[in-house]
Amino acid sequence: MDRSGSVARREAYNGSELENGAAIMDGKSQREEGGEEEDMSVEKMFESEAVPSWQSQLTFRAFIVSFVLSVLFTFIVMKLNLTTGIIPSLNVSAGLLGFFFLKTWTKLLEKSGLLKQPFTRQENTVIQTCVVASSGIAFSGGFGSYLFGMSSVVASQSTEANNAQNIKELNLAWMIGFLFVVSFLGLFSVVPLRKIMIIDFKLIYPSGTATAHLINSFHTPKGAKLAKKQVRALGKFFSFSFLWGFFQWFFTAGDSCGFVNFPTFGLKAYENRFYFDFSATYVGVGMICPYLINVSVLLGGILSWGVMWPLIEDRKGHWYPETLSESSLHGLQGYRVFIAIALILGDGLYNFCKVFGHTLYGLYHQFKNKSVLPVARRSPSEPSLSIDDKRRTELFLKDQIPTWFAIAGYVVIAIISTVSLPHIFHQLKWYHIVVIYIVAPVLAFCNAYGAGLTDWSLASTYGKLAIFTIGAWAGASHGGVLAGLAACGVMMNIVSTASDLSQDFKTGYMTLASPRSMFVSQIIGTAMGCVISPCVFWLFYKAFHDLGQPGSQYPAPYGLVYRNMSILGVEGFSALPKNCLTLCYIFFAGAIVINAIRDAVGKKRARFVPIPMAMAIPFYLGSYFAIDMCLGSLILFVWGKVNKRKADAFAPAVASGLICGDGIWTLPQSILALAGVNPPICMKFLSRKANTRVDAFLGS
Amino acid sequence: MDRSGSVARREAYNGSELENGAAIMDGKSQREEGGEEEDMSVEKMFESEAVPSWQSQLTFRAFIVSFVLSVLFTFIVMKLNLTTGIIPSLNVSAGLLGFFFLKTWTKLLEKSGLLKQPFTRQENTVIQTCVVASSGIAFSGGFGSYLFGMSSVVASQSTEANNAQNIKELNLAWMIGFLFVVSFLGLFSVVPLRKIMIIDFKLIYPSGTATAHLINSFHTPKGAKLAKKQVRALGKFFSFSFLWGFFQWFFTAGDSCGFVNFPTFGLKAYENRFYFDFSATYVGVGMICPYLINVSVLLGGILSWGVMWPLIEDRKGHWYPETLSESSLHGLQGYRVFIAIALILGDGLYNFCKVFGHTLYGLYHQFKNKSVLPVARRSPSEPSLSIDDKRRTELFLKDQIPTWFAIAGYVVIAIISTVSLPHIFHQLKWYHIVVIYIVAPVLAFCNAYGAGLTDWSLASTYGKLAIFTIGAWAGASHGGVLAGLAACGVMMNIVSTASDLSQDFKTGYMTLASPRSMFVSQIIGTAMGCVISPCVFWLFYKAFHDLGQPGSQYPAPYGLVYRNMSILGVEGFSALPKNCLTLCYIFFAGAIVINAIRDAVGKKRARFVPIPMAMAIPFYLGSYFAIDMCLGSLILFVWGKVNKRKADAFAPAVASGLICGDGIWTLPQSILALAGVNPPICMKFLSRKANTRVDAFLGS
Repeated sequence: MDRSGSVARREAYNGSELENGAAIMDGKSQREEGGEEEDMSVEKMFESEAVPSWQSQLTFRAFIVSFVLSVLFTFIVMKLNLTTGIIPSLNVSAGLLGFFFLKTWTKLLEKSGLLKQPFTRQENTVIQTCVVASSGIAFSGGFGSYLFGMSSVVASQSTEANNAQNIKELNLAWMIGFLFVVSFLGLFSVVPLRKIMIIDFKLIYPSGTATAHLINSFHTPKGAKLAKKQVRALGKFFSFSFLWGFFQWFFTAGDSCGFVNFPTFGLKAYENRFYFDFSATYVGVGMICPYLINVSVLLGGILSWGVMWPLIEDRKGHWYPETLSESSLHGLQGYRVFIAIALILGDGLYNFCKVFGHTLYGLYHQFKNKSVLPVARRSPSEPSLSIDDKRRTELFLKDQIPTWFAIAGYVVIAIISTVSLPHIFHQLKWYHIVVIYIVAPVLAFCNAYGAGLTDWSLASTYGKLAIFTIGAWAGASHGGVLAGLAACGVMMNIVSTASDLSQDFKTGYMTLASPRSMFVSQIIGTAMGCVISPCVFWLFYKAFHDLGQPGSQYPAPYGLVYRNMSILGVEGFSALPKNCLTLCYIFFAGAIVINAIRDAVGKKRARFVPIPMAMAIPFYLGSYFAIDMCLGSLILFVWGKVNKRKADAFAPAVASGLICGDGIWTLPQSILALAGVNPPICMKFLSRKANTRVDAFLGS
Repeated sequence: MDRSGSVARREAYNGSELENGAAIMDGKSQREEGGEEEDMSVEKMFESEAVPSWQSQLTFRAFIVSFVLSVLFTFIVMKLNLTTGIIPSLNVSAGLLGFFFLKTWTKLLEKSGLLKQPFTRQENTVIQTCVVASSGIAFSGGFGSYLFGMSSVVASQSTEANNAQNIKELNLAWMIGFLFVVSFLGLFSVVPLRKIMIIDFKLIYPSGTATAHLINSFHTPKGAKLAKKQVRALGKFFSFSFLWGFFQWFFTAGDSCGFVNFPTFGLKAYENRFYFDFSATYVGVGMICPYLINVSVLLGGILSWGVMWPLIEDRKGHWYPETLSESSLHGLQGYRVFIAIALILGDGLYNFCKVFGHTLYGLYHQFKNKSVLPVARRSPSEPSLSIDDKRRTELFLKDQIPTWFAIAGYVVIAIISTVSLPHIFHQLKWYHIVVIYIVAPVLAFCNAYGAGLTDWSLASTYGKLAIFTIGAWAGASHGGVLAGLAACGVMMNIVSTASDLSQDFKTGYMTLASPRSMFVSQIIGTAMGCVISPCVFWLFYKAFHDLGQPGSQYPAPYGLVYRNMSILGVEGFSALPKNCLTLCYIFFAGAIVINAIRDAVGKKRARFVPIPMAMAIPFYLGSYFAIDMCLGSLILFVWGKVNKRKADAFAPAVASGLICGDGIWTLPQSILALAGVNPPICMKFLSRKANTRVDAFLGS
């Protein structure tokens, strides 16, 4: 095998945002509130409020709140990383909770007469930016994917590249060091280009725009009232979800105990991983993700576990040896993993080509007829700039970040990184890193531009590119598998933070927050993330001893997928079980064809064509979380039928509450596990036959 | 032991109705709708509608609907009989569903042009009466109490009177025969007195009045709309409850499997029968019963299983032998059963004296100043009769039932009964029966009068009276235990039907239904009940082999309680375990004292004094159903806080839906059991230790 791969998260979710044209949830909740106001000029409403200087936008209290929220969201993202790898956008929760915390804080201070500075929307934007930057590291740090894929836990699940050279044991110290040297480059690479992106190209950045609308609307009196109600809904479902997690815990005294193993549709369906596992998190995720994603996931689950795996299992003894263990990659598990990889790669390749083409096409037009917008809704020429745009542009250009500063910063960090990284991964040579850092700014720009057009960050696809090139370059005998994974990390961090910061610049532009305060906030947030994320991961790693084992509570599916992509990239296809390669080709082609169909039939009918990336995830994991997500969809659907207005305004808050409560429950849960406190009861599901035997056994 | 006892149902529930002065739920739902109308004369609104003759009130379609509903309600009452013995009033459901069925029926006929006769409120009253009469037999037939107490299943649980003479095996044929000969007497005994009760004494009969309001309001246009909405709510929760029952079934492959054994509060609490058993029925019951009942039940459960039984268990070896089986009445089980009996008897005695005193006092006043109302809200003298009363009185007196017919009927049936009963129970002699039938009309009148004043039917207390007198008279050596139980049945059926028919006469009076049609409807309903109830019971009896076993799904607690009352009555206290008698005296006195306090502190503060009768039930069963009921209370409470109007209008419908759905699920459930279809999965709850052992066992 001589290739390697990368995660589907951002694609899977952001792909969904692409679906509806603009950001899904932020867009929804603000359209309701902020829609009219935008038409009648937002900035007129805020005219009376002075915009604080960029230094006073960066308050100490904002960073305290950011820190608290960062820990919260890191837990949530980490949990999602390690269970399925599907991570919805938590921007609304961050915005809502940031507003709520600081509003309460300032209210209290106001009452005690100690308030020196009122709570402004710029400060809100700073919090939002900092939290997104920090919790972004939990994803781009690869704790569920490339980083975890380096460990012996994952390596021992496959027989290839299972040698010391291709394994690096995880350790808190080097993980923090690694993140610090790779995470800041993206920020510097995109800074010089912000004016071109935001002012000249007028890129949309749907997520950034939606977040800005949300924050703007919160700071109007009407918005504050709605926000309060939303926070209350969030709080209610947060508590419910937390308590439900707590309640479930009591019944999980052993493996396959508890609600997570509830054979809702019978034992036969359970064996094929088709059951409702009572996870509040994924019901919430289902409420946030668009219907199409949820249905695609379910479809993928039915296709794989309902049809394909049983058929392949019938060929046991012919296609693969009968004596293999359940988790061997030479058996059924191999089909599961590699067919999923084929789908992910096919989808990734198609979209890479598409977005890259889009980018080039856009740039071409951009430079041909200078400063005319290719994609934005209206293409206003200079004189017709609205009041809003005038004021925003003025403030955006006030606080400059000198280009020499950005370039110097990039070069200095790149040198530090080039020197230090080979000490962490001796399989990764200095010349590999230099090449990455020369190419990276271009790719970072591409990604930032692409996200501005489509809201679709291709970070993990660029990561895959690095796995394949660097892995092959290093070669199997020189630890190419590990080199590939490490290179993936370096690349992903750059391109991911680049697109995140661009989104934030857009948000800042629309809330009159200074680019400088955005930049500083993102730097502080990234630094926080570099410490918080490894620590949280370490807590999980120490608390749950079966982390990364298939079938356990935290299977971390992408750890194995990434590692196997890397092995595939470096070593080739020789070890795959019979007919697996053929099937992989079919699904790889299938993914491309389905995507092409989606684009061909037009936006309206594309709603009925599934997304291959989303279908791939249950191939490996089973459909249980798909059931949760579809339940979330169903709840949202029924709610929308009963009361559309209310559903639109509160569904994101309810979903966030469900996700946050369950996510934060993992903190006490892992502390309990670390302290050796075990749950007292096992809720077990036995067939009638087994039950009779057990009763006889217990009776004797 | 030389005493015996009887069930708490009607008391327990109707006691609660006494609580709030008037009928609880019927009153509530109609007050909302019918309140104003009553003040502005109901009969004026109905002036345009002709009242059909009594023969045309008794339509064929009404009895078909009645039959269907009777089967439905018999299932529900039977299930309740056999699980806890707590049975809420199902009048509203009967009224609602009767209206719904016949309205749909007539609508359909109207469309097809075949409708000959419109649906009148009189017809609605006929259905209501018939269904209540029929499902009343399911209670007064004693399938959960005296009749079941005769069987060897119950007898084998105690060591006394466990001989053939005191056991009568159940059999469908003799049960139907028995019911037919005893159930009609009550009807005839009360017929001659109806004018005195309704017109002269103007007794309130809260349940009857409330039902009449309900029916009247349904037949106004506004009422029909509300009724439709209520039926929809009922239907929704009916389906939910039915499906939930169905879903639960899959996980009950063995004993102590499934949701009914869910150790919600931990295994330790589960061992003390303190858990939420996910029963939709009792959540619904909790929503119908007043808060005080639910809290009393919970309090009783905590007092007994939380405090007393553990304390007594500590004295194992001192107070009772250690070697006894868990269910032996000489051990802990004895304390449970007999202390519960003491509480029930104390409460029963107090209330018997009270209501009887009330009755005598009322009668005294009644005859002293003729036809002046002692208790009714207003005491109108003849000239100030309202339009409503005039019209109602006129119609009530139009269709007479000759007194000679009633007396002749009574005598004929009494003779048949006296001749045939000793053939069924050879322990019961003809002279016992003659004595009962001479005393019975007086007691029937007392009960009907008492119910008219207080809505509190004392049927089972009169039944206890029979157990004690006839049991002692027959003597232990002549099968006194069985004679007592049989006498209880004879007595209970008479007094129970007497008060029921009086309630119906009141309903008929207020809906302008003829007394004749009421009487005929009640006779037909009773006849239906005499066939339906034993058949439904027989289905349960054959389908569930552990019927009546403590700790099983259908423990039928009152079966054992009744039998032990009878044993106690016939044989004396000698066999009770140490200190049990002392405790019984304390609780007997306690019940009387608590009741006295309730009366002394006044209605307002009585809300905070628990009801001993309700406290007694969990003494034997444990608190699990109390948790359900309190959850029902909680839901109602929160709902009331959120939206009082909606909660008042729909809570009874929702509760009825929950009860009916779960109740009717027992029909397919018992059919499945009869067909030998067993559930496939066991949801088992094991301690961590046991789980480790089981995993090792299953793994090997």
